[in-house]
Amino acid sequence: MKICVLGGDGYCGWATALYLSLKGHAVSVVDNFLRRQWDFELGAQTLTPIQPLSDRLRVWQKVTGKAIELFTGDVTDYEFLSSVIQTVEPDAVVHFAEQRSAPYSMIDRKHAIFTQINNVAGTLNVLFAIKEFRPDCHLVKLGTMGEYGTPNIDIEEGYIRIDHNGRSDVLPFPKQPGSFYHLSKVHDSHNIMFACKIWGLRVTDLNQGVVYGTVTDEVVLDEALINRFDYDEVFGTVLNRFCVEAAAGHHLTVYGKGGQTRGFLDIRDTVRCIEIACLNPANEGECRIFNQFTEQFSVLQLAEMVQAAAWKMGLTVEIDHLPAPRVEAEQHYYNAKHSKLIDLGLEPHYLSDSLLDSLMNIAIRYRERIDSSLFLPQVQWRNARNLRSRPSSLSVSAG
Amino acid sequence: MKICVLGGDGYCGWATALYLSLKGHAVSVVDNFLRRQWDFELGAQTLTPIQPLSDRLRVWQKVTGKAIELFTGDVTDYEFLSSVIQTVEPDAVVHFAEQRSAPYSMIDRKHAIFTQINNVAGTLNVLFAIKEFRPDCHLVKLGTMGEYGTPNIDIEEGYIRIDHNGRSDVLPFPKQPGSFYHLSKVHDSHNIMFACKIWGLRVTDLNQGVVYGTVTDEVVLDEALINRFDYDEVFGTVLNRFCVEAAAGHHLTVYGKGGQTRGFLDIRDTVRCIEIACLNPANEGECRIFNQFTEQFSVLQLAEMVQAAAWKMGLTVEIDHLPAPRVEAEQHYYNAKHSKLIDLGLEPHYLSDSLLDSLMNIAIRYRERIDSSLFLPQVQWRNARNLRSRPSSLSVSAG
Repeated sequence: MKICVLGGDGYCGWATALYLSLKGHAVSVVDNFLRRQWDFELGAQTLTPIQPLSDRLRVWQKVTGKAIELFTGDVTDYEFLSSVIQTVEPDAVVHFAEQRSAPYSMIDRKHAIFTQINNVAGTLNVLFAIKEFRPDCHLVKLGTMGEYGTPNIDIEEGYIRIDHNGRSDVLPFPKQPGSFYHLSKVHDSHNIMFACKIWGLRVTDLNQGVVYGTVTDEVVLDEALINRFDYDEVFGTVLNRFCVEAAAGHHLTVYGKGGQTRGFLDIRDTVRCIEIACLNPANEGECRIFNQFTEQFSVLQLAEMVQAAAWKMGLTVEIDHLPAPRVEAEQHYYNAKHSKLIDLGLEPHYLSDSLLDSLMNIAIRYRERIDSSLFLPQVQWRNARNLRSRPSSLSVSAG
Repeated sequence: MKICVLGGDGYCGWATALYLSLKGHAVSVVDNFLRRQWDFELGAQTLTPIQPLSDRLRVWQKVTGKAIELFTGDVTDYEFLSSVIQTVEPDAVVHFAEQRSAPYSMIDRKHAIFTQINNVAGTLNVLFAIKEFRPDCHLVKLGTMGEYGTPNIDIEEGYIRIDHNGRSDVLPFPKQPGSFYHLSKVHDSHNIMFACKIWGLRVTDLNQGVVYGTVTDEVVLDEALINRFDYDEVFGTVLNRFCVEAAAGHHLTVYGKGGQTRGFLDIRDTVRCIEIACLNPANEGECRIFNQFTEQFSVLQLAEMVQAAAWKMGLTVEIDHLPAPRVEAEQHYYNAKHSKLIDLGLEPHYLSDSLLDSLMNIAIRYRERIDSSLFLPQVQWRNARNLRSRPSSLSVSAG
């Protein structure tokens, strides 16, 4: 298949592009490198020393013989995006090209509005470009499990049958997102559902859980292909951050009680889920929604697992319960369905001791790159303005 | 109360500002006159000859002795908006300052993106300005009944109790909006609910039905105070448009079968509902949702009522069933709850023969201003681009 990966220089996008390329698909990548710019803004760098995309792609071609075409530009620029769609004529567009951090969106008003405009306008452009120039193309859009929030009922995959006053209908599952970022994905989902209805587009909206891990079969082919591994409070996902904290001898930074339960998945499952979605396109006019995760954990459970894995490696790690920077339930019911991707053939990589060991080993291998001043949350949901600063006292490891 | 009306030069905003002013509230108005600019863009003018806002306000003060303060600027400009909030120190902010036409949002990609960015960013600015500078102020935000779409179950006021797999929760009512404009209101609603949760803001989100009428007790005090009365395919609401079509001897332009059923209300009830909401503010952290309409009608029912009213006045009017320009159910179940404003004291003005007569008389009074080329729908939901044109053949009345 001809597959265009929007946001192909990012954490999930890069792993996906390589996976699809090695599987024999004709892959092209679109990126504007904003994610790398945010590293400078935040004073944070990925734990792993990632290479410029052009270098990565050159090495990829040398190692595998596979070419990945690169289009540098911004999906919020319609002239650019529509030209790419007309040039590539993709069978599937995989859309990762959004600002994906909840804390980043909560820094202040400008970051909130940037996140919503960037994500909503970018996705509207993608929908219009497909409608105008490639109407049969299948859009695989990354959403998030965070769109649902934590309702006191089971979370279904996108839609729920509601019986009410003697009548019944299948309706979009109610959304209670927990940040301006998560809200942007809810806005996207509504826009997408409408575009499918009026234009007959084919879309798979993947409500992805929290991704962990960095190693995939493809990136290990050469060190120059290494994927990014964020551990800072803004872009670092929780399990990755805990492993780096443990390797640095830092306390694990649990927010509040740590009863926040979420769906998680290994990045090796992310890339497989994307391929499964591409190989099984949605029907014309169908807005198909999959919950893309493999296991549920509470934050505290993950901290305890990392603590145990560290102990086996001779590291003693403590768990801190920090004042919760977010406004969210710290203990709650959580049961989200996730059978549709399994039905289509996903064989999950469950979180194991060996995976935790591997994550810890990566953290230890790049230990000299760890900046422990990046661990503590500085973005408070209750503030309208968060001035992020890193006084030197913060950069001393607590371990 | 000190009440700041955002969008106070528009159809609902102007009527509301005068009503609140005469009731003794200290009213200030914010507007950027974009709505008047769109008249030029669309080549359409309100049936009624409205005066510049500064003139209207001068006449208002002369006639009533009441001063309404005017701040000219755009709510998407945060420096401007936050200065207004700090200067006025309002007890309530009534927010009408959005692009409110579904067809306008469906003209093409630029109009879709403009509508969503303008409305979403404007409302985010309002939320941030209140949080930062007037956190106890009550926001009264205009949403639309169109957020709900036409589900096959009863529509509740904002929230619905869902029993599912043996558990139960009260969740936001699922939304199925039918245009990029209606989607922008859904995005607003989600953002607002979140702001109430994290910052403890007080908000009333009014899901308003389709408004009709132009005469209120205040605007009749002087002809210079006359409100706008849109009848064109883009901004004209359906009952107003039918009355003007009848007065012009034009066929009534029903889209498709005309079974589209919606909630409607008289503009005299709009202004009273706003006051009721202001006088009964939401609690701290509460996102209260009212369905603001008084009666349900199908489009065909309205057409037949206008036909009958015209016949009594000696006008023979036919009903045309045009190919539906929108993508929507033309026959469907519709039962939306709307008791909360009644419970707080609303005494509805139901649609009556005398009101229809009054609307028709206004249409006849300003008959020479009618441009019948504006009646026929030119914005097709199924197109990604609608080039609106008005060939001379269209400007011949069909009546």
